[in-house]
Amino acid sequence: MNETAQRMRLPRAARSNTPSTSALKPIKSIKPIKPIKAIPVNPVGPTDTAYPLTTTAFSDYPATPANHSIWHVPTPALILSPHRAADNFKAIQRAFPGATVGYAMKSNPHPSLITAIARIDGAWFEVASKAEIQALLAIGVTGERMFFSNPVKQPAHIEFAVRHGLRLFAYDSDSEVEKLAQFNDPARPLEVYVRMTVSHQGALWPLTHKFGVEPRQAVELLHRADQSGLKPVGLAFHVGSQCVRRDTWVDALREVAPAWKMAHEDGLALDLIDLGGGFPTRYTGDVPKPSQIADVIRRVMGECVPGARRVFLEPGRGVCGDAADMVLQVTGVAPRPDGQTWLYVDGGYFSGLYEIPDGIRPSVQPIVREARPLGMHTYRLAGPTCDSLDTLFEMRSPVELVVGDRLVLKTAGAYVHNVSSSFNGFDQPVVLHEDEWMLHLSDFHGIC
Amino acid sequence: MNETAQRMRLPRAARSNTPSTSALKPIKSIKPIKPIKAIPVNPVGPTDTAYPLTTTAFSDYPATPANHSIWHVPTPALILSPHRAADNFKAIQRAFPGATVGYAMKSNPHPSLITAIARIDGAWFEVASKAEIQALLAIGVTGERMFFSNPVKQPAHIEFAVRHGLRLFAYDSDSEVEKLAQFNDPARPLEVYVRMTVSHQGALWPLTHKFGVEPRQAVELLHRADQSGLKPVGLAFHVGSQCVRRDTWVDALREVAPAWKMAHEDGLALDLIDLGGGFPTRYTGDVPKPSQIADVIRRVMGECVPGARRVFLEPGRGVCGDAADMVLQVTGVAPRPDGQTWLYVDGGYFSGLYEIPDGIRPSVQPIVREARPLGMHTYRLAGPTCDSLDTLFEMRSPVELVVGDRLVLKTAGAYVHNVSSSFNGFDQPVVLHEDEWMLHLSDFHGIC
Repeated sequence: MNETAQRMRLPRAARSNTPSTSALKPIKSIKPIKPIKAIPVNPVGPTDTAYPLTTTAFSDYPATPANHSIWHVPTPALILSPHRAADNFKAIQRAFPGATVGYAMKSNPHPSLITAIARIDGAWFEVASKAEIQALLAIGVTGERMFFSNPVKQPAHIEFAVRHGLRLFAYDSDSEVEKLAQFNDPARPLEVYVRMTVSHQGALWPLTHKFGVEPRQAVELLHRADQSGLKPVGLAFHVGSQCVRRDTWVDALREVAPAWKMAHEDGLALDLIDLGGGFPTRYTGDVPKPSQIADVIRRVMGECVPGARRVFLEPGRGVCGDAADMVLQVTGVAPRPDGQTWLYVDGGYFSGLYEIPDGIRPSVQPIVREARPLGMHTYRLAGPTCDSLDTLFEMRSPVELVVGDRLVLKTAGAYVHNVSSSFNGFDQPVVLHEDEWMLHLSDFHGIC
Repeated sequence: MNETAQRMRLPRAARSNTPSTSALKPIKSIKPIKPIKAIPVNPVGPTDTAYPLTTTAFSDYPATPANHSIWHVPTPALILSPHRAADNFKAIQRAFPGATVGYAMKSNPHPSLITAIARIDGAWFEVASKAEIQALLAIGVTGERMFFSNPVKQPAHIEFAVRHGLRLFAYDSDSEVEKLAQFNDPARPLEVYVRMTVSHQGALWPLTHKFGVEPRQAVELLHRADQSGLKPVGLAFHVGSQCVRRDTWVDALREVAPAWKMAHEDGLALDLIDLGGGFPTRYTGDVPKPSQIADVIRRVMGECVPGARRVFLEPGRGVCGDAADMVLQVTGVAPRPDGQTWLYVDGGYFSGLYEIPDGIRPSVQPIVREARPLGMHTYRLAGPTCDSLDTLFEMRSPVELVVGDRLVLKTAGAYVHNVSSSFNGFDQPVVLHEDEWMLHLSDFHGIC
């Protein structure tokens, strides 16, 4: 069993970063207190306010009492909300009636999250490796509900996939056709679709040229697959992760259209279009909803990919992004020669927050034990390791922070849990479930 | 037990990325074959050569026979050479006679590597966290041979360190003095030294302003520690990782000198200077040797830090950098619309090669099963995941590469093993030992 599978299958307690997580579990009889709902987004208030900043109750940043669950959470922790991921998934299904929605495993393969999604009627999964397939088989999802969209696969992974009933594979090179053909049964050929390159305007991570081909090559590859005994069924694209510009999907479909048309003229009966991922989650600014993205896509589908009977989607971040928050503990505060006050926390770049240097900016909610005067403080947030790369972002807190305070980092559900290491000996985030801990992600607003 | 400690203590076989590593172990009776020593650095030769490129034996890139150990290595793998790390460590000790050399655990905490170093007379360790201390205690190293140079520590880690006999702690803020004072026994005070900020010219990773203070604040912090019952003993700095400019250490000492002088004038009897890390390893270009760095430092020590009876060093990369190579397998080759040919391998950014986008460029040795014509091919190397961040570098190979070939990435000993994740379900590198596998790092030259 490889390490991924080991990790995925370990009971939560075994992955805890404290010697006795169970001992730390909050007593069920303590009623959860929700003292932080009343904090306004701009707690300092307008400058023309009649109320000067004092330490009266009205101008204090509210305390979170010592018996609140949040103080019992071992840090760093990810508080997971599988049902929120399931709700997001269903919203995408509703926005695209008739489409096959496959959850992109790479964004967060936590067993309880994929289990919640697997229970949804019609839910599929997009996989990229043997271990991702194994994780799904382990929770009872069969290969018939998976498609393999990684265009460059390891031969052993193809063999495993075929053996477990996967039928749909992306590809974008001759070398991949050769690999797939090795495991093909001409009597019941594998269905394959070509990944195309499209423009990525509006995506936080343009996918560069790592994957995808242009129209002429796409058609050549469809023929090549046909000649090799595979069954070419369609085309795929990916607009890039966290795409906030709806028209990028429209542009992409227009770029795909010539290949679709050429293929049909060549007698290749394509019926599958994989619209990929890119569905955004809300970090700080507004992002388009699945229904809004669906609206623009729907208008051009008939024109760009006529006869596309099967429409595939691969949302990841848009499903799991807001399905987890990270709880961190302040471990140090220091003024620095650069004029900034640095705030050190026990999770950072190596705890899974590797996307932050590239522009992801989660909102933050400070949690303090005792009420303190409101007042803006600017901090340069940094992780616990000695690595200079391990810095996060600048934040303005409505309250002065000290060692022992907690920070709730919102929207830590995607590309965090599965990307952490214990570099420098620091604990990887332990995953907790909001229900078990009587914590609710919606209690934390991310006010700064 | 936290996950770090779990990882560190697991027997190698349990971390293997293949179902049966032991079954794959090469049969001891096979004599290792060393067919690749003869490859010149520029195998194509000068353009005025009289020998055109043909498939004759002289113009072929040599095959590595099927019974060579390299073909039995599960990929991705790190082939570790603990004795090479030990040799590098001893070279630094020899270059700095009388100094206390502490191996920076963060650079590679593999048990067999730290065990080899722990056996060296006078070897110390630089730690930054509880888990790093635990890993050392597990191999029999006591706290008396460790110093804690992370300037911002977690209170629980300080408590653990003090309880296990650590006496020396770096700091650089008031908040850290408060934390350390909590665990201090005034009858036998902890020895503390202030981390200063210095210029980082010539270092691949300038350490920014995450840690360190300027002279005036350094002296204030020394007094502050003194008033809190701690024993201020010295100053520390770090020139930044992979520092190839020797004079940067000289510049740093000159920046530290005013604080050292002020402290002595104030009656603080400092006797410890921690020169930090920064010792480079050889990736592709030449780098200064420890003895060359020592030469320039020695000339200014008396002038900058007179009376520094204790000199501390914290080498990491300079010890373990060339003590491991990574073996990767080619999993795909594809021409792309950007005009480049992309070469996909089964390890990448998420397998621990996270420093490559920042400028680390290891050299590479292609390994092929059958002799092939020599000829330059340019490849854009990419890792196995679907993430666009997971691309490595452009390389020029003296032979065309196909699926199934191996690449040996040289100098993968530092900041790789301990920074990998199984993102997207891809195996983390398994660590093998060169002796057990009858592979020798020196067999692989890194020709491109």
